[in-house]
Amino acid sequence: MKNIIVGQSGGPTAVINSSVAGVYKKAKELGVERVYGMVYGIEGFLNENIIDLDDYLNNDENYELLKRTPSAFLGSCRYKLPKIEDNKEVYEKIFEILDKYEIDALFYIGGNDSMDTIKMLSDYAKENNKKQVFMGVPKTIDNDLPITDHCPGYGSSAKYIATSLKEVIRDNASFGVVKPTVCIVEIMGRHAGWLAAAAALAKDDTCEGVDAIYLPESKFDLDEFVASVEELAKTKHSIVIAVSEGVKTSDGKFVCELSNEHIAVDAFGHKQLSGCGQTLANIVATRTGLKTRAIEYSTLQRAATHIASLTDINEAEMVGMKAVEEANNGKTGMMVIITRDDSNGYTSSADTYDIHDIANVEKKIPLEWIDEENKQMKEEFIKYAKPLIQGELAPIFKDGLPVHLIRK
Amino acid sequence: MKNIIVGQSGGPTAVINSSVAGVYKKAKELGVERVYGMVYGIEGFLNENIIDLDDYLNNDENYELLKRTPSAFLGSCRYKLPKIEDNKEVYEKIFEILDKYEIDALFYIGGNDSMDTIKMLSDYAKENNKKQVFMGVPKTIDNDLPITDHCPGYGSSAKYIATSLKEVIRDNASFGVVKPTVCIVEIMGRHAGWLAAAAALAKDDTCEGVDAIYLPESKFDLDEFVASVEELAKTKHSIVIAVSEGVKTSDGKFVCELSNEHIAVDAFGHKQLSGCGQTLANIVATRTGLKTRAIEYSTLQRAATHIASLTDINEAEMVGMKAVEEANNGKTGMMVIITRDDSNGYTSSADTYDIHDIANVEKKIPLEWIDEENKQMKEEFIKYAKPLIQGELAPIFKDGLPVHLIRK
Repeated sequence: MKNIIVGQSGGPTAVINSSVAGVYKKAKELGVERVYGMVYGIEGFLNENIIDLDDYLNNDENYELLKRTPSAFLGSCRYKLPKIEDNKEVYEKIFEILDKYEIDALFYIGGNDSMDTIKMLSDYAKENNKKQVFMGVPKTIDNDLPITDHCPGYGSSAKYIATSLKEVIRDNASFGVVKPTVCIVEIMGRHAGWLAAAAALAKDDTCEGVDAIYLPESKFDLDEFVASVEELAKTKHSIVIAVSEGVKTSDGKFVCELSNEHIAVDAFGHKQLSGCGQTLANIVATRTGLKTRAIEYSTLQRAATHIASLTDINEAEMVGMKAVEEANNGKTGMMVIITRDDSNGYTSSADTYDIHDIANVEKKIPLEWIDEENKQMKEEFIKYAKPLIQGELAPIFKDGLPVHLIRK
Repeated sequence: MKNIIVGQSGGPTAVINSSVAGVYKKAKELGVERVYGMVYGIEGFLNENIIDLDDYLNNDENYELLKRTPSAFLGSCRYKLPKIEDNKEVYEKIFEILDKYEIDALFYIGGNDSMDTIKMLSDYAKENNKKQVFMGVPKTIDNDLPITDHCPGYGSSAKYIATSLKEVIRDNASFGVVKPTVCIVEIMGRHAGWLAAAAALAKDDTCEGVDAIYLPESKFDLDEFVASVEELAKTKHSIVIAVSEGVKTSDGKFVCELSNEHIAVDAFGHKQLSGCGQTLANIVATRTGLKTRAIEYSTLQRAATHIASLTDINEAEMVGMKAVEEANNGKTGMMVIITRDDSNGYTSSADTYDIHDIANVEKKIPLEWIDEENKQMKEEFIKYAKPLIQGELAPIFKDGLPVHLIRK
């Protein structure tokens, strides 16, 4: 491969830049001449917004900083490629730019929607006898890509959620003599409850854990919810409940739609959710008179690189490296997947899988991992998730704050 | 001193337990027999809810864990002592319990309202010839106690706010080609803007900083606010604005009251604010059509011990130690204050000050430190706050998460 290009797409994660680092590292090992980065994903690429990563990563210090930098270093987009038959011009333009820069391989770091981009580009290349290869690199805090055991980005969000919940639970338990305080913590995850489930990890030797977890995979009944909080308040002065933003009432409405807030829609037609925790907190306060508070982790749960999981960082780098290795072997139209081996402690390795089986498929939590009665996660989930939050990569501090690597 | 007792009161901080650690350490150095802790502050004390700190702190490992434990290890309260003339019985009961446990000194770690408790107890002791001494130990993320240069707890919250904002700013800047995204971050601080001002610290070599900071000390005009956001959106695709929860419109209404949310009142008659950021985000979205998001730091900004400032931890321990040292010298009715020496880098030391000049007085940000025109903090503030966020005390991790010390 002479030159290659890497892009980032969709919502960022705490470790999405470690995959860029991995792509760069392996490419340089293989003697690739130029490693380009597309600024703002395929949308920026179409405007030839391209940088040469040598300008940033030509020293070890910057490489280490990149791994400690939150959000998409290259910039991201939510641009959805049109169907090939609907708009051939876009595809022609993409290959024109690839040819112009003598790019032999394109790597796209993203989630479900981004894998669709890789699928269509590799399909187009095959149909039109283009030489370029296209590889998907998994990334999503939602952990909802199929086939792969888990997705880079998830472990760090899970670690942030569990760390922060341990602190929130301590804080909420401060006041003992007053009437019970109900804290409702809203966690991201539109359709899959992997992130909200990570709240279960907060329970350990030095923390009593959350009192209940509500996932989009389970049924949610508002009256039952309020009754269950009231029941908890009979014996506990501090109640902390984790709720997925994707929780729906029995008639299929998102809980946040119960309030009168404006619901916006993004480029993929997803509803822009917010306020599910606050909505529930208001309802509980009104109906029971209990003191309530809502906390929404918002983008903090995907941007908190300062408390990222080292396992996650290493795996994000690994999948980036694997993508380049396999592209160099001539593979195309694949996504890198992570496989797990629990036979002797936790180890993981990278493999590749046909992108057609991955794009636009969503993986949800197995229902048998959910303890519906006690509103908690079962041991199977803990065994699955615990290895993913292990280890830390301390930030590099300057003048009291973590240093990042940013584009000029 | 034979025995002493220490209590924690008001909203917790990331380092409030380091002051308990300091009290314990100095007391043991001075040969104090028993160091008691009141569980849930003076309110728990009145129910004789008392523990012996030897049961927890008799080894170095637990002492180190205590300094890394968020929230009030002993539990807290918002109980306000009645005026002496209104309810002598409460005071008689307190001294009865002090006598029963042979307690010679009481230490209360708290903010404005808690210092009022120390004032009244020391006044009562003097008037009634009681031998016990009473010392206040400063603590508040709000940084609004007078006389002392700053308050333990503030530095760590400021460090959390700046660290998190650096991550939020990166995250918000991810998407470049779409229309501008306005992120409004709500920061605590009812009447004093010290915490919101800490948003200014996010600006450094690797971060462009926030676009505007709104403090309760400044005038706030809603139309001007919306116009200023629209102006920013003409040239920037990512806009991040820090707003104090205490921001008021010109007719004296808290911004969050503009929405139709229920406003509750706490035991001290403070309004329980929430939703100022969300209210402004909704208003901007409606009036300008810009994409908005609100982030509320809520209790995260006072509980994030995992990213606490080492300077703050050390000073919190120092003020606890100083209180015991001076009580042992016979002082009473005083609060420990921190004085700063900037002559040769930053150093600080502890002194004591008459509690009558401190209780119920609120210190605001000097208006001359605010750049009203550019909606930023001036260099004077940066010079003041920067030393307070220096250094880190890494959490002790077990199985991927920070370990805490908790009461049995």
